[in-house]
Amino acid sequence: MDFKIKRLKLLNALSKTTKAVSIRSPLPVLTGIKFDLQENCLILTGSDSDITIQTRIEKDENLIINQTGGVVLNSRYILDIVRKIDSDEISIHTIDGALTRISGSNSKFDLNGTDILDYPRIDLSKTGTKVLLNSLILKDIISQTKFAASDKENKPILTGINFKATNHQLECTATDSYRLAKKIVSLDEDVTFNITIPQKSLDEISKIIESDEMIEMYVSDRKVLYVFNNNIIQTRLIDGSFPDTNRLIPDSFNYELDLDTHYLLNAIDRVSLLTNEQNNIIKLDMDPDKIVLSSYMQEIGSVEEILDNAFYKGEPLSISFSSKYANDAIRAFNEPKIKILFTGEMKPFIIKDYEKDDVIQLVLPVRTF
Amino acid sequence: MDFKIKRLKLLNALSKTTKAVSIRSPLPVLTGIKFDLQENCLILTGSDSDITIQTRIEKDENLIINQTGGVVLNSRYILDIVRKIDSDEISIHTIDGALTRISGSNSKFDLNGTDILDYPRIDLSKTGTKVLLNSLILKDIISQTKFAASDKENKPILTGINFKATNHQLECTATDSYRLAKKIVSLDEDVTFNITIPQKSLDEISKIIESDEMIEMYVSDRKVLYVFNNNIIQTRLIDGSFPDTNRLIPDSFNYELDLDTHYLLNAIDRVSLLTNEQNNIIKLDMDPDKIVLSSYMQEIGSVEEILDNAFYKGEPLSISFSSKYANDAIRAFNEPKIKILFTGEMKPFIIKDYEKDDVIQLVLPVRTF
Repeated sequence: MDFKIKRLKLLNALSKTTKAVSIRSPLPVLTGIKFDLQENCLILTGSDSDITIQTRIEKDENLIINQTGGVVLNSRYILDIVRKIDSDEISIHTIDGALTRISGSNSKFDLNGTDILDYPRIDLSKTGTKVLLNSLILKDIISQTKFAASDKENKPILTGINFKATNHQLECTATDSYRLAKKIVSLDEDVTFNITIPQKSLDEISKIIESDEMIEMYVSDRKVLYVFNNNIIQTRLIDGSFPDTNRLIPDSFNYELDLDTHYLLNAIDRVSLLTNEQNNIIKLDMDPDKIVLSSYMQEIGSVEEILDNAFYKGEPLSISFSSKYANDAIRAFNEPKIKILFTGEMKPFIIKDYEKDDVIQLVLPVRTF
Repeated sequence: MDFKIKRLKLLNALSKTTKAVSIRSPLPVLTGIKFDLQENCLILTGSDSDITIQTRIEKDENLIINQTGGVVLNSRYILDIVRKIDSDEISIHTIDGALTRISGSNSKFDLNGTDILDYPRIDLSKTGTKVLLNSLILKDIISQTKFAASDKENKPILTGINFKATNHQLECTATDSYRLAKKIVSLDEDVTFNITIPQKSLDEISKIIESDEMIEMYVSDRKVLYVFNNNIIQTRLIDGSFPDTNRLIPDSFNYELDLDTHYLLNAIDRVSLLTNEQNNIIKLDMDPDKIVLSSYMQEIGSVEEILDNAFYKGEPLSISFSSKYANDAIRAFNEPKIKILFTGEMKPFIIKDYEKDDVIQLVLPVRTF
């Protein structure tokens, strides 16, 4: 293996593929990035058991290929070296077996690599149901739902985001059973599937998306493949069936609160100052004349904030909930105005954009103080 | 206690005094800030056993005093509240005993304070030897020496910075016994003292210094007082005698390396990529024709960097040292060019500005690999 490459081009590709690598992988070779230098391109692959990221750099004036070949280099070291080496152009060649030299102007790194044959074969073939999804829409799906996924491993299925396609519609849902986030988008294809993708993998994909483009998704039983630009990303699916959450979402409401998104976020932030980090419970007291957000912290003190930039319809209602959950849910809206819909004091309430219905955030209240 | 104040004015004062507070103080009242509202001013005090910071806000159009009095408020909560409250002007008044209301436009916080009589009396009188020091020079002293102080408690005296005044000269030294940093400044006063101030306290003082001004220092046996602007800061001294370090600094040298500060820092940064976090040893091989910085990491690989932007005088010499210590020492110079002076392979070497002699950094080499 012997090639010359523009530093920033390689750095960009390494930054992507490294996201798939877990430096604590039980299989040592998977702590590395596979360099596969072919006649016309350099293919870099990073992988752990959940996600594989492959990116391809085509041969051109920025990539001079002297001799094809391959090697696996420790992801952490090669990324740091390419980030810091003293040259705009880098030469990389294997010296002896898997020993690889990375040279800049005055610096020269020799890294002990691993034979490319020791790298596991990963099947990245385009099989299964094909769907086209705009990259920015996928980014929105991820950012508007991921925080509601569970971070506890006792119910693995809840650590993922559920993607359910039917009748030209894709419904994406995350829930940790105390709150729920759902985003609905339309699909050109009339396809049917119901899969749950690890939240962490989707988060990495979101970071790799750079521009507005179409992503080909290939959905099969155990995995899903994303193909866009020069990237192929494959993630495993989470086994098990995702709970049917639609029955949890009330369809009629007795109370409605309309407010400015940013104003409410600031008020929640202030009132949360006097809550415990563990439960951070705040209370909302509403009647058409006065809307008060408050909290109370034993021994420390209390806070009350009057929301005068809000409009309430319904009988007087008091409801207590986690300020963190409310904050996460409200932040998911990139819109200036939202509405909060209630059915009763101890019933889940939902948050929606004031005009659109594509995103639904549901929060379970808690017993009041 | 009842007053109205501009939010930013109070926030600035609280940010300073809070720096002295340790939220894990064994004396609960010291987790608070003392508010002492007098006829003509508001005095805020924060303290732990090492440092006390007091700042004074004079009565003017930004501070309206309705009723004098005082209270101690939890530093963390009062700081967060003043940071986030929804108004440019805040009203603060005690409601009942130590229960204190902080009000903005629509938000109202009630904090359970502590009676001001429970706050320990701290003597901040201006006693001892008086010295005047420019604030920016004090900042330089701190930033150019503090990293060399020990972070281990087994030799408490080494966790401080030694200030030794004699013959119109102030010599400030920190050492963890593997390296040493010294800065010498001249004094108008012909005073004599030899004190060691906790490095952590000096670091807090450095953060409070905002402008170019004169600081009055009052040095006594067990403490030192700094008075500037509307601030009074008092720090305890560390007991014990600081080692006489001048005999450690060689006064003649056989080898000299001159280089560009920034260029050397970058080279060290690169070569350090292949070192262990524990010892991070790098090696410098010098002869007048070639200067090479290198490191080696078992199983991982090696790196060599040719320093061609450097000038060396002397017989060939190889020396190994901690890249972290070298990096800290070199960063202390705000000058474009430095010189490194050696006496032998296993002898301490020193780093100086290429032209000035006010700062001396000394590093002990280690056995080479």
